[in-house]
Amino acid sequence: MLGEIGLKVLWPEARALYKSAGAEVEEGEERVRFDPDLIEELVAKAPSKITLRSRNPVHDITFGEGRVVFATVGGPPNVSDLERGRRPGSAEALADFVKLAQSFDVIHVIGAPAEPVEVPLNVRHLEIARIYLTLSEKAPFFYSRGPQALADAVEMMRIARGIDEARLLAEPSCYTVVNMNSPLQLDVPMSQGIIDMARLGQVTIVTPFTLAGAMAPITIAGALAQQNAEALAGIALSQIVRPGAPVVYGGFTSNVDMKSGAPAFGTPEYTQAALAGGQLARRYGLPYRSSNTTASNAPDAQAAYESEMSLWGALMGGCNFLLHGAGWLEGGLTSSYEKFILDVEMLQMMAAFFRPPPVDEASLGLAAVREVGPGGHYFGAAHTLERYEDAFYAPLVSDWRNFETWEEDGARDATTRANRLWKETLARYEPPAMDPAVAEELDAFVARRTEEGGAEVA
Amino acid sequence: MLGEIGLKVLWPEARALYKSAGAEVEEGEERVRFDPDLIEELVAKAPSKITLRSRNPVHDITFGEGRVVFATVGGPPNVSDLERGRRPGSAEALADFVKLAQSFDVIHVIGAPAEPVEVPLNVRHLEIARIYLTLSEKAPFFYSRGPQALADAVEMMRIARGIDEARLLAEPSCYTVVNMNSPLQLDVPMSQGIIDMARLGQVTIVTPFTLAGAMAPITIAGALAQQNAEALAGIALSQIVRPGAPVVYGGFTSNVDMKSGAPAFGTPEYTQAALAGGQLARRYGLPYRSSNTTASNAPDAQAAYESEMSLWGALMGGCNFLLHGAGWLEGGLTSSYEKFILDVEMLQMMAAFFRPPPVDEASLGLAAVREVGPGGHYFGAAHTLERYEDAFYAPLVSDWRNFETWEEDGARDATTRANRLWKETLARYEPPAMDPAVAEELDAFVARRTEEGGAEVA
Repeated sequence: MLGEIGLKVLWPEARALYKSAGAEVEEGEERVRFDPDLIEELVAKAPSKITLRSRNPVHDITFGEGRVVFATVGGPPNVSDLERGRRPGSAEALADFVKLAQSFDVIHVIGAPAEPVEVPLNVRHLEIARIYLTLSEKAPFFYSRGPQALADAVEMMRIARGIDEARLLAEPSCYTVVNMNSPLQLDVPMSQGIIDMARLGQVTIVTPFTLAGAMAPITIAGALAQQNAEALAGIALSQIVRPGAPVVYGGFTSNVDMKSGAPAFGTPEYTQAALAGGQLARRYGLPYRSSNTTASNAPDAQAAYESEMSLWGALMGGCNFLLHGAGWLEGGLTSSYEKFILDVEMLQMMAAFFRPPPVDEASLGLAAVREVGPGGHYFGAAHTLERYEDAFYAPLVSDWRNFETWEEDGARDATTRANRLWKETLARYEPPAMDPAVAEELDAFVARRTEEGGAEVA
Repeated sequence: MLGEIGLKVLWPEARALYKSAGAEVEEGEERVRFDPDLIEELVAKAPSKITLRSRNPVHDITFGEGRVVFATVGGPPNVSDLERGRRPGSAEALADFVKLAQSFDVIHVIGAPAEPVEVPLNVRHLEIARIYLTLSEKAPFFYSRGPQALADAVEMMRIARGIDEARLLAEPSCYTVVNMNSPLQLDVPMSQGIIDMARLGQVTIVTPFTLAGAMAPITIAGALAQQNAEALAGIALSQIVRPGAPVVYGGFTSNVDMKSGAPAFGTPEYTQAALAGGQLARRYGLPYRSSNTTASNAPDAQAAYESEMSLWGALMGGCNFLLHGAGWLEGGLTSSYEKFILDVEMLQMMAAFFRPPPVDEASLGLAAVREVGPGGHYFGAAHTLERYEDAFYAPLVSDWRNFETWEEDGARDATTRANRLWKETLARYEPPAMDPAVAEELDAFVARRTEEGGAEVA
């Protein structure tokens, strides 16, 4: 695919970089073709494991090589909750989701959970970064919407961490996602994103958006083949700019409803692709990004079972970076407050599931079986009393009470309970401590850049 | 466990059978102890694969050795739906669930989806069997509530199939579930169930109900060790009665809420146990039974994610017989009409997920990528047009329409859509054809046995 058909690269600088590394460039067609060995050679320079640093080292996290991190949803233009319904994103909503992300340990990384649409585009990146960096300590996502905006955001990350540029270059502290313009095309802002993040030493997740039947062949094998070609071509660009730049192999192969053309998520085909995507990433020794998705319009049973199909595909597939881990609804067009809480529960359950249970003489419990004997009961056994406090996962949303007790208490379903839980979580939230000098420097930077007119964004 | 502590067996006939095979019996304590080699020797006689025959050979199904069948929920005393709420089971509700089971191809086997509580106990087994055998062609579950009731039900199965006793003995056509009285106890009706079904050549699923922290050690390793001991002891009894009798290794290890003692299902620990249970069953070359469970009181998001955790544990664990596949709610105390439909969707998705996608030159689709080219679209490609009709799983409940269309159409959530779907399915249902002579013979049998006073049940 990359050798014969090649990648269409819209930005001349990117084509020049590919050419400098030995790719064959056909300028008129804006086409770049690759020798398979060249791609493999470039991709082999990327690290298999990445540590994202936080402004609080407690939240430094490593992913790749069998370790996985969970991020919030990223990118929805809308937000919704049970009372206020669906509406465009806002700075207030973004702040809410960042506070929720900070509040749950199972969320390791911030996505872009809401878009503050009321903030002018030229300074929006500054406001987004300020919200991330003051309300949370977890590593943030920055949009690739142009070199100046990205540079501003990364500079704010540097200020928040209180380190110099050389150290930031060596210590990735934020990430972006570059979606290839499938099939086989890389546009200007996406090329710039890969190039700029590699130069700044920050993480790029290269994710082809290969919907089988629309932007990729209708077969899972074909869509995965195209995903693989596109991901490798993007990753190669990062390694041309800076060998060893932290980069992630992203998979997002799903299918469309062939009657309506609507994208579908968390389908059986999606799950197969999520699993096989992990095999491909491991083939190249790269960290693998997958997602927690659903096409449901409501935080309901469909949202739950499609998310579970996505999660199992991702995590059994060896996913290292789970984007859209919490909050994604409606094919990614809405961040749902209730879905965020339901997802936290599902993620916590998966984390507990992946913790290997002890298997040794004590846990096998023959002495307890002897003590209790046939027909007995274990509630009072010594083996039970020693372990009961943290023997099992304690749920967040799930209600295990009997029907009568549950009914007398209002017969609330899981979504209604999730509504109460996000409100309680926001009410309890306290911002993480920040050195006042750092806060001042951040504010001063935002003020100065705003005065300078902000940034031109794509 | 079986060698030193042993199994308490309440029925003298069962103890005598164990003794006849070489087990050590302590009569005063009603205790049976086993040499490990004896257990392994007996268990090795059981088949690794079983075919359940239907009165319509189209519905004959084989499970074991990598093949799995899905059954409805079995055993709940209550039923519920969105309009009528929760209420005790009835013959009408049982008929509804059997009709639903007959209507969906992904359901292979009938459980005991509702209890016709208005039918007197002495003749209830006759009415249940008549409902199963006239409204469905799928292999049914019969309760072990006493030898006469079981014999009556199996005789009705024989009549429905129109075969003689010798052939029924060689061709299992129904099944029962024997729950061990954990820890390490086997009561009279359960012993009788194992013995009678082995004598009749029908299938017994031996399932210890090992809730960690209550009826089994609080550790997953300990609960599984006890599950294994109990399952093997029950299976051994069937093989003493009739070597080669069709029998299934059942796993049902879960945990309880240590605060309230309430059983929990579809938890991380449940999923671990479901996976490991499959490893144990394969260790002995036995078909493995697992379940689709939830503790939720409503057919909501919790019901969906707990069911998915159960399904993934079961199916990644190599489950061969999935009991409670559709309809289970509230820890098994209620059969829900809406949950049945949601479960059918989840089962269908799993079935589609397990179908390996083709990987060959045609499916890799390089020609399609060449035809479409960078930046193009696959909707009109020849590769797409050849395959679009059945390329992807078509959902039953899931709504993939965009938000606006969905909202204008009533903004129904998945549970509300499931409510409409079971009603439509029942409205469309037509009973499968039955030879009038067979129907007459069944009715005559029921009339005669009713006149004789039915059966004494446990």
